[in-house]
Formats: sequence, C-alpha cells, structure tokens
Amino acid sequence: MKKLSMSIAVALALLGSAAVQAKTVKINLTAKEVETPIDNKGTMYRSWTYEGMVPGPVIHVEEGDVVEFTLTNDKTSKNSHSVDFHAARVDVVKDFEQVKPGEKGSYTFRADYPGIFYYHCGADPMIQHIARGMYGAIIVDPKDKSAMPKADREYVLIQSELYANPDNQADMMANKWTNVMFNGGIFKYDPVHDPDATRMLQAKPGERVRIYFVNAGVNEFSSFHAIAGIWDKVYPSGNPKNALTGLQSYVVGPGDAASFDIISPVEGANALVTHSLRQALTGAIAILQYTKDADPKMGRGENILVR
Amino acid sequence: MKKLSMSIAVALALLGSAAVQAKTVKINLTAKEVETPIDNKGTMYRSWTYEGMVPGPVIHVEEGDVVEFTLTNDKTSKNSHSVDFHAARVDVVKDFEQVKPGEKGSYTFRADYPGIFYYHCGADPMIQHIARGMYGAIIVDPKDKSAMPKADREYVLIQSELYANPDNQADMMANKWTNVMFNGGIFKYDPVHDPDATRMLQAKPGERVRIYFVNAGVNEFSSFHAIAGIWDKVYPSGNPKNALTGLQSYVVGPGDAASFDIISPVEGANALVTHSLRQALTGAIAILQYTKDADPKMGRGENILVR
Amino acid sequence: MKKLSMSIAVALALLGSAAVQAKTVKINLTAKEVETPIDNKGTMYRSWTYEGMVPGPVIHVEEGDVVEFTLTNDKTSKNSHSVDFHAARVDVVKDFEQVKPGEKGSYTFRADYPGIFYYHCGADPMIQHIARGMYGAIIVDPKDKSAMPKADREYVLIQSELYANPDNQADMMANKWTNVMFNGGIFKYDPVHDPDATRMLQAKPGERVRIYFVNAGVNEFSSFHAIAGIWDKVYPSGNPKNALTGLQSYVVGPGDAASFDIISPVEGANALVTHSLRQALTGAIAILQYTKDADPKMGRGENILVR
Repeated sequence: MKKLSMSIAVALALLGSAAVQAKTVKINLTAKEVETPIDNKGTMYRSWTYEGMVPGPVIHVEEGDVVEFTLTNDKTSKNSHSVDFHAARVDVVKDFEQVKPGEKGSYTFRADYPGIFYYHCGADPMIQHIARGMYGAIIVDPKDKSAMPKADREYVLIQSELYANPDNQADMMANKWTNVMFNGGIFKYDPVHDPDATRMLQAKPGERVRIYFVNAGVNEFSSFHAIAGIWDKVYPSGNPKNALTGLQSYVVGPGDAASFDIISPVEGANALVTHSLRQALTGAIAILQYTKDADPKMGRGENILVR
Repeated sequence: MKKLSMSIAVALALLGSAAVQAKTVKINLTAKEVETPIDNKGTMYRSWTYEGMVPGPVIHVEEGDVVEFTLTNDKTSKNSHSVDFHAARVDVVKDFEQVKPGEKGSYTFRADYPGIFYYHCGADPMIQHIARGMYGAIIVDPKDKSAMPKADREYVLIQSELYANPDNQADMMANKWTNVMFNGGIFKYDPVHDPDATRMLQAKPGERVRIYFVNAGVNEFSSFHAIAGIWDKVYPSGNPKNALTGLQSYVVGPGDAASFDIISPVEGANALVTHSLRQALTGAIAILQYTKDADPKMGRGENILVR
Repeated sequence: MKKLSMSIAVALALLGSAAVQAKTVKINLTAKEVETPIDNKGTMYRSWTYEGMVPGPVIHVEEGDVVEFTLTNDKTSKNSHSVDFHAARVDVVKDFEQVKPGEKGSYTFRADYPGIFYYHCGADPMIQHIARGMYGAIIVDPKDKSAMPKADREYVLIQSELYANPDNQADMMANKWTNVMFNGGIFKYDPVHDPDATRMLQAKPGERVRIYFVNAGVNEFSSFHAIAGIWDKVYPSGNPKNALTGLQSYVVGPGDAASFDIISPVEGANALVTHSLRQALTGAIAILQYTKDADPKMGRGENILVR
C-alpha cells in the first residue's frame, strides 16, 4: 500500500514577515485505473482510483495553508481525470479541468475554511468516475487549536454506493446500486455481518473519537448514526463554529461531509451506520470497538483511514 | 389499551449523598406478535409490537436517570426480539442482544443526553422488525427546566413506511412501500383525507405545542413541515443546545428525531406532513386543530401519543 | 414577461401610533394554465402557473408586514387552484382553500418570521399542481438590517423535478421524474452542459452573493453545493439566527428553503448543483460567473430571478 508520505511533500515557505504561520503545501495525486477489492473476500472491481486505492489518500493541511496541487494522470489510463477539492475556492472551468492520460494538471488554492471536505473526480461522466472509486477526504485543521475539543483518535469513513457493472452509467443514473459501503468495501469493518472482516475501528472507553464522515454518494443521502452510542458533538463540514450537541443521527447529503465526536463510557462496541436500513444492511456498517487495550497506533497517523 | 403506568415502575434511589437528584427508573417492555390496525377502518396487519401497540409506549425519563431496562419476549412470539434505545450509550453486542421467545433480557444505561430519542427492535432482520411495528419514542427531559421554553402541550409523532406484505423482506430492502404513516396509521389523524378519521391533535391558539418527531424509517428521509404554520423552534435530537428558529421544514433522517415547537396565532388548523409529497399523500398527514375549547386532556399525560 | 410591479401594490398603513414601521402589503397572483418552456431550446410543457411564468413571481416583503393576499383563478383555467405561503401562519382549511376558475380568494397574514419561504399551489392533487409549475419564492427581509451581512447580489434558485407527462399523476407518486431543474428549465443557466443556454448568474470576485434556494420537490431532497466554491454562510429557512459557517453542502428537503452566501476570491466560475448526481446531471446545474465586469443589473431588482 502506497504511503501518503510518498505522494505529499510539504514545503514550508514564509509568505512575508507578518504571516509567519502561512505555509505552502504541495499535494500530488496520480490517477490510476486498476482493480481494487470491494469486499473482505477480495472480490475485485474495475476501479478508477487515486494512487491505486479506494478511497484515495487522506490529505491533511491546516487552515490558511496554500495548497499547490498537481494531478498526474497515469499513462496507462484510458480516460481523462480531474480532482475537485471541496476545500477549494477556484474556477470550476480552468482549475478542475480534466487531465488526459500521461499528462499533468496543476492549480493552487488556499484552504480558507477549516473542516472535513470531500474530493473527487469531476471528469465526464462524473457519476461514473466517482462510483468507480475516485474519491477521498481532505482535512483542514483549524488554526485555532482550542476551537474544538481535542480528539484522542480520529477515523475517516467515506460512504458510497456500489454499482454492479462499473461500465453501466445508466444504472448509476437510475440509482440501481447493489450495496452501500464505507471506505470502498462491503461490511469492510463489520465482523458481525461478514465473518471475513478482520478490521475494525478501535478506541478506549472515555476517549473522544472523531469520525470524519464523507458521503461520496453518488446519489444517496446518509443518516449517520452510532448504534449504542450518541454523537457528543457533530460539526457540519467539520467547522468548529457549527457545533451540534447530543445527536443520535445527522443527515449528510451526497457531496457533503461532517465530523462526529463520540465517547463511550463503557467497554464494548458501537456500530456506525447510515440508518436508512437498506443502505446499512447491504454493507454500510462499521464496528467501533472500545477496549482498554486498544492499539495505540489505531486512529492516529496513517491509521485514521483503516486500509 | 395497556396503560404505560402498568409497564413502568419508578424506583427512586439515592446514589450517594451528593447526587440527590439522580434516580433509577425501571422500564419493562414486552414484545408481542399481534395484529394491529393500520388505518382508520381497522384493517389489520400482522405486526410485531411492544406491548401489543404500534408505536410502542412512550418512555419518559429525566436527564441523568439510570434506566434499568428489561425486555420480556412473550412466550407466544415466534421470533427473537430486542430493544435499541437511541438514548443509551452501551455495548451493541451484549446489551442490544436479541431475546428468545419466553425469555428476558436486561441492561442498564444512564440517560446522559436530554432530548427525544428513537427506540426500536434490532433483531435480525432489523429492517423487517421495525417495518412491522417495533418502534417507539423515549423522551429524556432536560435537568435544567429553563433550558427550553415550557410547552403547553406535547405530542409524539413517529413516521414510518408501510410495506404491503409484512413477510416480504425483499420489498423492504427495495424500498417498495405502499404508504407512509404517522403513529402506525394511514391518515390516522387526518379527517380531510380520510372520512373515517376521528382523531386529531388539539391545542388552543397561542399555546406552544411541542411535537416530538421520530422518523422510524425504515428507509425514507422526512422533510417535516406544518402546512399553514411555521416551526418557532426546532431542536435536533430534542437537545436544548441545538435550537433553530423560524423554520418552515427540517429534514429528519431515518433513525433520527427532533422536537418541533409551533404556536398558532389564530383558530383553525395546521396539517403536519412530510413535504416529500408522495410520502404525505399516501398517509403521512396529521391535523393539528387550534380551538379555544381544546380538550385540556389532549397533549398531556398519556395523550401525548394519541391512540 | 409580466412585471412583478404589476401584480403587487403596496399600501402603507399606520397600524396605530406605536407601530410606525408596520405596513400592509397587497399581493395579487393570478393562476393561469398555459404552456411554458422547460429547456433552452424552447420545448413547451403544459404547465399550470402563477402569472404565466414558472417559477411564479418573487414576492418581497419585510418582517412584520401584514400581507393581504388575493388569488385570482383565470377564467380560462380548467382546474381550481390555491396558494400556500410557507411564510404564513393561518388556517390550512379556510385560508388555503382552492379557488374555482374565474373566481377570487383572499386571506391575510403577518410575516412574523424573516427568511426565504416557498409558496405553491395546494389544490388537489397537490403533487400534480406543483409538478406542473405552481411554485415560487417569498422573501421576508429581516427588520433588523444588521442581523445578516449585506449581500451585494441576490439570486433565487428553485429546484424541482420534471415529469414527462404532466397529466400522469401516477408517475409523480412513483417518483419517476426525467429531469431535475432550477427555475423550471433543464440546464437553464448552464452553457457547459447545454450549448443552447444563454443565461447565467453573474457577480464580481469579492462580492457576497446570496442564493435564496427553494426546493419545490415534489419528492426529492437536495444537497445544495457550489462546485469550486464554499458557502460562507448558510441560513436554514433564511433566518439570521440560524447561521452555519463554511459549509460545502447543505441538505434542503422538499418543501424547504435556505439562503446560501458565497464569495469568490477569484475570477472564474462556480457551478451550483444538487450533489445527488443523477439530479444534477439531468439538469440541476447553474453557472455562477465571477467577472470584474459583471452586469450591475444582474442579481438585483427583478433580476434576482433570471428569466
């Protein structure tokens, strides 16, 4: 599995003496059309991806950072691709333009709003590019570190629909999905519903766990809920100014994102789901296990998206 | 009709000298597979229920209460059942475990977050258990009585979908409902659309009416609206900290709940609906009648859920 | 095209010496069953309308205004019609009563809550009356002008679904739409997807643009997003007290509305969409073009709804 550090190089640059904290971050992504597994058995799907993985790498920057972004479309690709960062305020025509196989495209934006944002391919037909796997998350940490309670662990979960035939755009337009998934896999983190599942989210009782939740769609709305848990805080788009308290569920539309904080007072498990049950019961369930001996590496660093 | 007081016994217990207000509440529910009416004509449906009613009894506790809950699955049941309280932070595996016919299951939780919460059966297949009627509402009153304006009347409305054949789980997974209902009945409180309807919600002009709204789903999102009225306040999950003001509608996902305050300056009626019209026009309309001589018993005590 | 000023007469009336700012506004709308274009080629549809246009005229009043409303149903109509203002607190039975062809109906309400509100026909079958075009927006400006940042330009966008056969109510109840549109036209403001599109929204970089967004439905939920932009503020129902900050998307249910502020730091374009992609890609995309020489008349006066 490619490491994120391989595809991101950070260049710290002083942008004048007054703005000592402003820095420039270089982000590079490569579009690759490869097969990826869509379940715990390893059933392969003809995906289109960033960096060969679904979801793409988690991008992490800070509020105010200037992001110099370059997309390389691998020369083995058969289609043009692009990246639409929901954290960017730019020109949809020029900056999100699709890049041909073997070529590169670049644009720059400043991450003005803190939070959790979706990124995805916008190349035509966009519904197919996303449904085949070209989606990921960019986290923009607030500059004011006291704006939100500090999370002890963080996880990224991205909801999406699986369409049986990746070539069949008509099924996507007709919303004829077969499964709804988190992070590109059917019951990926749910050993309760799939004996082949070996991965789960982990935390200790009492820890504040922040779920960066993105709904990649392409069509369905999500009603994100923790079975046997309550969201202590929900932040629409992850912005600290939008705190909601004590929610059982929160609706995240397709193309939207929010961060969800949860604390368990006891050992045991919560099951994170979209409470639209036909979505959940076809694959969108993730177990969050609370144990006193939770792996200290989980929910931190590269393990905020469990591969 | 079973009285709620028959199934709930409150045991006041001092939990140490400092926490004089903390109390323990014993809640008992019995799962029963019985026929219940799904319209005003009395058409019967092979429901699965709590206490033989759809929705189940309204549970009422106070923030901070310790709830000792016991589910009895009636010996006449053919299926295992369970209760998932959205107000509880517990272990999904151990505490929400399904209970076999003729057996009992218990667990304890403290109601840490105030508001309106959904409860439902989580036994497999959950989509069928809920669609057949195993759902209800638990209200957790805020400890701070000044946190919200006092309501003059309160009503519980629970939205759900009706699937023609209660045995056909495939139709539920395919979202092929025939009707959307409030409190388990087609146009249950709507004499405008159903001449057989004899029940309505009632209040006086100028009174603050609080609707505890739960969307039991199983699949559909609700856009809850008062025709000819405006929500003075909406509280997502019923938490006083989440006040929204002057809303015409608010989206409540499946598995979610919110409280909605409304005040009519005039005599007349509002029609409470989900504004997704194919939902409303198949049964999800409730008349809230404002008259100076509104029945003082309505919207209070056991009449917050109009049977 | 009928001018709004022709159908609205404002009568300033002192309502007692203490309430010097309260005024009475007379609003008149005429229901007309006429053909209207549903795309940029001019394909005609057998619409039902207010004032012969889809959407109907934008109504603009101030918080506290007393609105004396009269609906005239044109004598050429074949159906009864009505107006349900979401800004009104009245009696659904008496005030929203349907008016027969050639007749008039009146009612009065005070616009107590500021914001953006939906209006639509509620005559039976409501789903068909709305789907055929009987919808519009009423803006209630807050009395406190400092309650929200001042917008440099304002636009009204109303989302709705197109059903191929306007007579086929069954298709509407089955949610079998063919297109989703803004302001009654397929890709009405989107020359990227439709070479026949000649209209766009316009603003200058740095200007605060307020989108008054209404979801007329009749069935679908919207996930309103600006491609290549971020909502600086979102106000559910347009109420200043409900400010959300830095959102990428916000869910607006059918029968709901919200105002969305956006500022572009650069020249270029954003594409306003519902991010449920099968909705967007069948017609619900509007280009908002940022240029230094943006037409000063656009987004002001009668051009807040681009005809």
